[in-house]
Amino acid sequence: MSHDEVTTFPVERLSEFTVRVLQSFGVPEHDAHLAADVLAVSDLRGIDSHGIARLHSYFSMLSLGRINPQPKITTVRETVGTAVVDGDNGLGLVVGPHANDIAMDKADAAGSSWVATRNTNHYGIAGYYVLKALERDQIGWSMTNTTRIVAPLWGADRMLGTNPIAIAFPGKEEPPIVIDMATPAAAFGKIEMALRRQKPIPDGWAIDKEGYPTTDPERMADGGAMLPLGSERERGGHKGYCLGAMVDLLCGPLSGGNWGPFTPPFTIGHADPEREVGEGLGHLFGAMRIDAFRDVDEFKLQIDDWIRTFRATRPAPDTDGPLIPGDPEREAEEIRRREGIPLIPAVVNDLREISSRTGIPFD
Amino acid sequence: MSHDEVTTFPVERLSEFTVRVLQSFGVPEHDAHLAADVLAVSDLRGIDSHGIARLHSYFSMLSLGRINPQPKITTVRETVGTAVVDGDNGLGLVVGPHANDIAMDKADAAGSSWVATRNTNHYGIAGYYVLKALERDQIGWSMTNTTRIVAPLWGADRMLGTNPIAIAFPGKEEPPIVIDMATPAAAFGKIEMALRRQKPIPDGWAIDKEGYPTTDPERMADGGAMLPLGSERERGGHKGYCLGAMVDLLCGPLSGGNWGPFTPPFTIGHADPEREVGEGLGHLFGAMRIDAFRDVDEFKLQIDDWIRTFRATRPAPDTDGPLIPGDPEREAEEIRRREGIPLIPAVVNDLREISSRTGIPFD
Repeated sequence: MSHDEVTTFPVERLSEFTVRVLQSFGVPEHDAHLAADVLAVSDLRGIDSHGIARLHSYFSMLSLGRINPQPKITTVRETVGTAVVDGDNGLGLVVGPHANDIAMDKADAAGSSWVATRNTNHYGIAGYYVLKALERDQIGWSMTNTTRIVAPLWGADRMLGTNPIAIAFPGKEEPPIVIDMATPAAAFGKIEMALRRQKPIPDGWAIDKEGYPTTDPERMADGGAMLPLGSERERGGHKGYCLGAMVDLLCGPLSGGNWGPFTPPFTIGHADPEREVGEGLGHLFGAMRIDAFRDVDEFKLQIDDWIRTFRATRPAPDTDGPLIPGDPEREAEEIRRREGIPLIPAVVNDLREISSRTGIPFD
Repeated sequence: MSHDEVTTFPVERLSEFTVRVLQSFGVPEHDAHLAADVLAVSDLRGIDSHGIARLHSYFSMLSLGRINPQPKITTVRETVGTAVVDGDNGLGLVVGPHANDIAMDKADAAGSSWVATRNTNHYGIAGYYVLKALERDQIGWSMTNTTRIVAPLWGADRMLGTNPIAIAFPGKEEPPIVIDMATPAAAFGKIEMALRRQKPIPDGWAIDKEGYPTTDPERMADGGAMLPLGSERERGGHKGYCLGAMVDLLCGPLSGGNWGPFTPPFTIGHADPEREVGEGLGHLFGAMRIDAFRDVDEFKLQIDDWIRTFRATRPAPDTDGPLIPGDPEREAEEIRRREGIPLIPAVVNDLREISSRTGIPFD
């Protein structure tokens, strides 16, 4: 995306619009603010694909009655350190923060926790949830399964979602280390961008509908699939597949959500899965109370030392040296808080359409 | 390794030899059996690099007094769902199973658990520990940091170990799904094999000591480094780096063990780290009681369904279709229980040397 194509908006304005749109479907005010916050954090951190750009999908799903605007979120099973939460087919942007709060509360009680969540929908960026844990001096874990688009190594069909994993570690003087990674070789957003520009994609990202490697984004989009991290056997594609499978197994079968090829579609354009094996999507949230393991300050000083040590790594030729996970997102946030969120015309048009259909002013 | 080079030994005979060698250093009988069992499971499952082939390294470290044969393993901090264990510089093969038992007991009490372990040494295959959890209808997690050999993306130095992650899920009629993966693009054993045969390695596995990509295993071995899963930025090398970092952060700073470039050397040939930032290596064990989330049988039936669904994936051209994680290891075990463990001449020679130095008969 080149800079002259984009229009920038203050994040507060986008959030206000989101809140009003969601409220127009009967989403309670508190929930609407929660959801808007998840999208705003994504936009601020530069994860454009998961921010306000997705409002149109949520809007469509709510319009069609496929997402419940007023879910009754319940804990259906629990122990001192675990819970299973049923999201009542609510917005993942609402169910997610709720279940994540339970995970953090349980870690307070038991030292650590896992909360499996079913009957939910796409929950925004995985990283949002682990940032919340940092505020409580906890190490947060966040995973979700998602609509199928990735082939397992040696498979020719879409069987897994992009299934991200996030975890974060707080520093004392240094900013936190924030890991938030999807499990394919490349982000789908990059393939979408290549599609729009009619440019080839690198080898190792995708296969076509016959299962052959392809560098043509059209061939991936037309019934092909993304490849897991590692891409091929020789470079560890089985490991990327294992990671995607791990997230799927922890989010689906453990919670009672759907899994693998049976995860529900994200937008109205996708075909329905062959059968249901659970309810909705699944997430998994975890929390570890740092002081259950070490004095908090001692831990944070170690993280500072880790960060400084890794920043001081001798750089590979023609690079500035390794980044610390979370660096790019933090730098994006500094700029975007100041300059606003850049939106491409397609997203602005989507938002204008929502505006005209709801009567809620956008710009 | 070609078959005519190897000699096969019944696993029981290798275990007996291991037990007697360890006992000769004063390792208590129960601990010696525990350690021998970890090595045997590795050899049975076809992870040759982590089985009896490592006995010589343990032997050297014990001979030099660098590993404590009679550690007093203590829990130094705990909550209902967490513990920090100090391994008193014992064999990782002994400290690991002990800490893993604590993790499983804590999951019984709290639904789930994490046990961070410091002041320990190499613990064998990560997968060993999660197989134990299966026996208790738990989902086990196992991670360890290890001696540095992997460069972070855009770095030119060895900063991280091969830092594996393992997790397993039990089926009812199907065998369990067992994920056990190191976080670089390829196993170091494969680079060693290329070295022995003076053959090139694939692009994406390694860099030389200047940080340039190399396909020459000698150049990797001579001060170069392995690359993380994903290999380069375009193919997600930052994600492999994130995974290696995650394991390091959870095993080192959380437990009070060393981390990153300061992890202790595995064998006597490696230089000592620049400084100490903790004690020994670090492991992290976790357990999730399945019935804290779902009825155990219901869960296992879902896993069976998952396995059958993924086995039925349409195969990519020129492949037999996706494997289920754990398939190759289980198949190796079936053969090796029947036919014995194949050892290459270098390993047999190492064992004979131990035999001649200890007077314990080998063959």
